[in-house]
Amino acid sequence: MSKSESDAATCCAPLNGPPMAEDEAVELAAVFKALADPVRLRLLNLIASAAGGEACVCDLTGPFEVSAPTISHHLKVLRQAGLIKGERRGTWVYYRLVPEALTRMSGLLALPVPA
Amino acid sequence: MSKSESDAATCCAPLNGPPMAEDEAVELAAVFKALADPVRLRLLNLIASAAGGEACVCDLTGPFEVSAPTISHHLKVLRQAGLIKGERRGTWVYYRLVPEALTRMSGLLALPVPA
Repeated sequence: MSKSESDAATCCAPLNGPPMAEDEAVELAAVFKALADPVRLRLLNLIASAAGGEACVCDLTGPFEVSAPTISHHLKVLRQAGLIKGERRGTWVYYRLVPEALTRMSGLLALPVPA
Repeated sequence: MSKSESDAATCCAPLNGPPMAEDEAVELAAVFKALADPVRLRLLNLIASAAGGEACVCDLTGPFEVSAPTISHHLKVLRQAGLIKGERRGTWVYYRLVPEALTRMSGLLALPVPA
């Protein structure tokens, strides 16, 4: 089991679960901050919906009206938050989601909707 | 069906779904921004886990080492993002989650984890 899988398994308490520790709240808030940008959300959407779940950085700049360095910055923020990972192959870097990280955040916000 | 229920029903596309519109990304990013604060996450946790799913504002200042006006500010941000709603009864305001709003954000981040 990888570290991220282990983290996801041990840290998926929903909001209506036990009291959230202060350091856990700080860590979760940092991930939400990475998600709190429209360009980064659309980048995640592009990566998640790419064929094979993987997108070349060369395909991620076209859809946006911002410069390539700005896209690189946003990808770095997502990578540092643990939401995506990149792999260099030849000239290009290829990005895919880290599903455990997204599942963790999804689980935090998942609540039973009252009937 | 209430407006928020209707919104939740029509807007729960996951990240690996169809292309995210620019205005939808802006709107979702604003909600993530409201979530991107440790005190606000702990407030949501306190409200979600309160008896009956409802917390008196009088019980929400004690657990934090910040002033009551600061807590009020954070509650206002959560309310404006549509994540909680408040109801005044007598002296106090009572807060509860808006489950449809949290379910929408949870659904956005929910991805099948590959085996």
